[in-house]
Amino acid sequence: MKPFMDEDLLLGTDSARRLFFDYAKDMPIVDYHCHVSPDEILKDVCLNDLGYAWLGGDHYKWRLMRAFGVPEEKITGSAPWEEKFRAYAYCVARAAGNPLYHWTHLELKRFFGYDGPLNEHTADEVWELGKRALSRPDMHVRGLILRSRVVAVGTTDDPADSLMSHGALREDKSFPVQVVPSFRPDKAVNIDKPGFAAYIGQLCGGPVNIGELKEALVLSLDRFQALGCRASDHGLDSVPYAPCTEAYAEKALEKALRGEAVSPLEAEAYKTHLLLFLGEKLHERDMVMQLHFGAQRNLNPPMFRSLGPDTGYDAIGDTGCAAKLAGFLGALENRRALPRTIVYSLNPVDNAMIDSVIGSFQGEGKCKLQHGSAWWFNDTLSGMRAQLTSLASISLLPGFVGMLTDSRSFLSYTRHEYFRRILCDLVGGWIEDGLLYPDFELWGKMVQDISFNNAKAYFRL
Amino acid sequence: MKPFMDEDLLLGTDSARRLFFDYAKDMPIVDYHCHVSPDEILKDVCLNDLGYAWLGGDHYKWRLMRAFGVPEEKITGSAPWEEKFRAYAYCVARAAGNPLYHWTHLELKRFFGYDGPLNEHTADEVWELGKRALSRPDMHVRGLILRSRVVAVGTTDDPADSLMSHGALREDKSFPVQVVPSFRPDKAVNIDKPGFAAYIGQLCGGPVNIGELKEALVLSLDRFQALGCRASDHGLDSVPYAPCTEAYAEKALEKALRGEAVSPLEAEAYKTHLLLFLGEKLHERDMVMQLHFGAQRNLNPPMFRSLGPDTGYDAIGDTGCAAKLAGFLGALENRRALPRTIVYSLNPVDNAMIDSVIGSFQGEGKCKLQHGSAWWFNDTLSGMRAQLTSLASISLLPGFVGMLTDSRSFLSYTRHEYFRRILCDLVGGWIEDGLLYPDFELWGKMVQDISFNNAKAYFRL
Amino acid sequence: MKPFMDEDLLLGTDSARRLFFDYAKDMPIVDYHCHVSPDEILKDVCLNDLGYAWLGGDHYKWRLMRAFGVPEEKITGSAPWEEKFRAYAYCVARAAGNPLYHWTHLELKRFFGYDGPLNEHTADEVWELGKRALSRPDMHVRGLILRSRVVAVGTTDDPADSLMSHGALREDKSFPVQVVPSFRPDKAVNIDKPGFAAYIGQLCGGPVNIGELKEALVLSLDRFQALGCRASDHGLDSVPYAPCTEAYAEKALEKALRGEAVSPLEAEAYKTHLLLFLGEKLHERDMVMQLHFGAQRNLNPPMFRSLGPDTGYDAIGDTGCAAKLAGFLGALENRRALPRTIVYSLNPVDNAMIDSVIGSFQGEGKCKLQHGSAWWFNDTLSGMRAQLTSLASISLLPGFVGMLTDSRSFLSYTRHEYFRRILCDLVGGWIEDGLLYPDFELWGKMVQDISFNNAKAYFRL
Repeated sequence: MKPFMDEDLLLGTDSARRLFFDYAKDMPIVDYHCHVSPDEILKDVCLNDLGYAWLGGDHYKWRLMRAFGVPEEKITGSAPWEEKFRAYAYCVARAAGNPLYHWTHLELKRFFGYDGPLNEHTADEVWELGKRALSRPDMHVRGLILRSRVVAVGTTDDPADSLMSHGALREDKSFPVQVVPSFRPDKAVNIDKPGFAAYIGQLCGGPVNIGELKEALVLSLDRFQALGCRASDHGLDSVPYAPCTEAYAEKALEKALRGEAVSPLEAEAYKTHLLLFLGEKLHERDMVMQLHFGAQRNLNPPMFRSLGPDTGYDAIGDTGCAAKLAGFLGALENRRALPRTIVYSLNPVDNAMIDSVIGSFQGEGKCKLQHGSAWWFNDTLSGMRAQLTSLASISLLPGFVGMLTDSRSFLSYTRHEYFRRILCDLVGGWIEDGLLYPDFELWGKMVQDISFNNAKAYFRL
Repeated sequence: MKPFMDEDLLLGTDSARRLFFDYAKDMPIVDYHCHVSPDEILKDVCLNDLGYAWLGGDHYKWRLMRAFGVPEEKITGSAPWEEKFRAYAYCVARAAGNPLYHWTHLELKRFFGYDGPLNEHTADEVWELGKRALSRPDMHVRGLILRSRVVAVGTTDDPADSLMSHGALREDKSFPVQVVPSFRPDKAVNIDKPGFAAYIGQLCGGPVNIGELKEALVLSLDRFQALGCRASDHGLDSVPYAPCTEAYAEKALEKALRGEAVSPLEAEAYKTHLLLFLGEKLHERDMVMQLHFGAQRNLNPPMFRSLGPDTGYDAIGDTGCAAKLAGFLGALENRRALPRTIVYSLNPVDNAMIDSVIGSFQGEGKCKLQHGSAWWFNDTLSGMRAQLTSLASISLLPGFVGMLTDSRSFLSYTRHEYFRRILCDLVGGWIEDGLLYPDFELWGKMVQDISFNNAKAYFRL
Repeated sequence: MKPFMDEDLLLGTDSARRLFFDYAKDMPIVDYHCHVSPDEILKDVCLNDLGYAWLGGDHYKWRLMRAFGVPEEKITGSAPWEEKFRAYAYCVARAAGNPLYHWTHLELKRFFGYDGPLNEHTADEVWELGKRALSRPDMHVRGLILRSRVVAVGTTDDPADSLMSHGALREDKSFPVQVVPSFRPDKAVNIDKPGFAAYIGQLCGGPVNIGELKEALVLSLDRFQALGCRASDHGLDSVPYAPCTEAYAEKALEKALRGEAVSPLEAEAYKTHLLLFLGEKLHERDMVMQLHFGAQRNLNPPMFRSLGPDTGYDAIGDTGCAAKLAGFLGALENRRALPRTIVYSLNPVDNAMIDSVIGSFQGEGKCKLQHGSAWWFNDTLSGMRAQLTSLASISLLPGFVGMLTDSRSFLSYTRHEYFRRILCDLVGGWIEDGLLYPDFELWGKMVQDISFNNAKAYFRL
């Protein structure tokens, strides 16, 4: 029996260990897509305790606790952080096979030097340990980032956002980490969601036509770019592809701004039109486009009313997107305006489809098109193995831009370590089985590239 | 090489063996969903021989034999049972990688003490052995149930059924096993299938309006409940979700009862309306709702004409159900009337989708929503591993209600052993790899819960 | 660490080794579905060098190089073959986890006796070795086929093709390999694709009605059969099933021949009508029908304009086909005219669905319906394991017709070896784990059947 989560965690062979310890382990991190708050980085916030740090905003953990039947009071409600922490400790101790089990224990090891299990018996000790550690200035938000060897962070931001924190962070020479915004114009794209008209008013300062909206978005994109933005991000549920004229999109926009309902086709055409436009603008600026799809959101009506969006009531969707994804990418390619693009689906059954579709648009530079790292519900041991295996088989492993946290938490950088271990175990296993020529310099370089260099180059950092 | 299907079958590590032998092996069985005949239990039927016992009603085996090209005469036709048994022996001996290979040999070991392989050379010996054993009174149907340590059986019954056997079994104090009906109102739901009007007549004693139909179903549900029924079951092919008014459903019902064809939308709206109603009634009664979908049935027209339904001509469907499943559960939740619900899809690509959808409706009690055990074509070594891995990664393993046989056969209880071995091997493997803290009390309790306690609590037995 | 791709490649247990070396290894090959040129076989072409041999027509390799960002000039452009070869050597050396890595090294071992890795450092040596070897008359196209122990080749041919090379090959008694055409009438089926009317003119010698078109196809099928054709092949993207009258199909045909656009429904109805007709004709002739679906083709508009079809811009589709596949097979079965049929989907998520659908149409002879070997993007280590596992679990492994190359290359026969190793490793692993009774005669016979005998019998060779 291997000791519990020791140095050799997930490393099943000597070759895997060699790849991890000699090559991957000490590479820096580019966390190119996450949801941390730039304001908290600017203010170098102290997270106080593991209750707030872990349960203040992490809907992964909330879902786990709800599945255990913990009352909402102790999840997102008004119970004290310590009580929430204890409830979580009980749950996570039992969550066999769940990534939270490993993430939690890795964070305890790496940030707090705690090697034991977290459970109801050790909760007191861990709570005190966490409180003590997090109060130290070098364990405030900036310290957590620095000790994780993170050199760049890509946050997720709205075109209407002032980006004030990003501006201030750029000026602050005392913090050596690049914190850059990512351009996420979902609210301007989602013409069929409540609040669209109000949002457009906020973004553009009043009602606009389609040309003016595009101008406002381009102005915002320029503003983002000036602060180091390297990428857009699009949360699409399903990929839209219904090409239309600008006049058609204009009419849909007018309708929506008048407060009328748009038809599903009008909505899809408008989205297609706007996203193709944005794709061109990203291409002009040598920026990266990230497409996220395959999700269903806010599925629980009462909880949506009481807690709002992004509170752990989302799921995987299954409306096949293959033809629309190919159509969308093909339309941009046909305009010679396809930017570097990362494709993520929340549905793991899309793995092979994505790898085969992106393979039809490669050609300029190494892996211009990317199959994004196993996302959200797939960010698990088996999910990452499946994504890597599909990527290697059908697309191209050595060009992969690798891991991101997609997280709201400053303690989640250990997920990069988790990913690297899985990657090294996979490649090391192939070497060990005689399936790869045992050239450790070559494969060591590959895992370093996937751990860091590829992302750095892809995002022009 | 490990000996053929010995004590350590499927147990690849010491931790797996410890979990199985010290914790899981001797737990009783709640077989909460199956298709055995309560009448045969009441009469304590003798199965006579392995021809009748195995081939009298098991379409899994029929399909295997058809794939081998065995003439239908020797499958469901008039050939003597011994001849059918011999034909099956030849086929199953060659069915590498098929669950029937393991089920058959496990049944021979556990019920008949036969450790060798079944094939054309051993068929004589096994035939005699089976005949001799099955003639013993303690190997009649009740004996088979008792020696399998089954404490509760949930059969599958029609609302129009008299439940006479269930009533008599409840009175019979000599048989200590709880045999309870499950409420399967498919014929009242499937407004678009032949025979609907006739069935409604049979159930309600004449033409009815929607209110009267609901009343009749509630009366039946009460009757079921009085006999210990804990759950409904719905065979849905694909999940309907097209909300409508009662008046709209009423019109569809009228049309169908007049013998007119209902449109696909009318059918879906009627089904949605009736199932939401039944969901509420189940919730009121603290009963469990089981949703089965992802199937296509009776695909072979000539064989359907000659043999009828449920004869081995069904398959997996692939109409994506994610949005409708979420909509259906959300509508019940919105009425604060979502019962405890188990979701099963016949298509294994739905695993991650299901685990993520049910996670959006958890919150009252441990794992109120359940991802049902790998169903039918997925009830295999790889299918169960996939279901368990997805469940553990995205949902919550320790709350799982575990295995059921879904079987027509009184010899199939060994599938619970098969499942427990796979479960213990998975969890034991994680412990062995250092992926779980080696607390055998904790994980032993978990495999006991999944083997028995969770189902007992979930079904209020 | 196992040596790099040595004799024990992919054989993880003693049982696997025994099955491979004692049974599978030396079986001949029936390559029943491929895209090699019968003309090149007739002329016994010399492939000259590994640049032309590998990169002259293989879009798998082109895609790999494009993903690395190699300029098209060095892929399909006018760069010298040696330069293309060098570019490929660099890429394939890094393609960890990609089947090309193994295919390439297996070809170097088996045809050229080169055991080292191919990369930028060894490219010179391998280039010279290849040039020298390929110039030898026994390494011309016929020699490559013969030394691969291929006894039959099924090419892929258009109904309008003269089949002159096939005719000449049939006469040529000096070449002992059966080279037979396969009937691929896609251009007559795809009423909605550009060039349809022109093609019908070419096939039928002028405008025709539906009856005349059927006659022309039957005449062609007879011509194919006279030259040994055993099978049709249909590239369907998605399975059509919209039954219609002949009059309806006739109208769609008229429209298309007049150059008018047909509606999606007209196109699907026409395709259904024609394919059901062809299915009947195949059944009458005791021939095999091969259905390929789940593809999207020619996705990159600029590259399609510059390079045309089949140049590496295709991908996996995800329009669920379960109901239509079942409907199509059921319609033929209902006419008692279902031929032996092999079903292939490009989308690996269809594995279980296919195995369950074909199980509903078995019954005449061993495995009349077949789940085809992992196709194209799935022709990988993990893809083949997934197909075999699903096939064994849900369908029937011992009846499987096994591997085909689906290739344009005369060096690709080593893929049969790759497949056999994976098969033997899977079955050997089961024996080793005590999951199969260790009867090596039985399982050895099974792997021989899957390697060769089943295909020979299924195609009546």
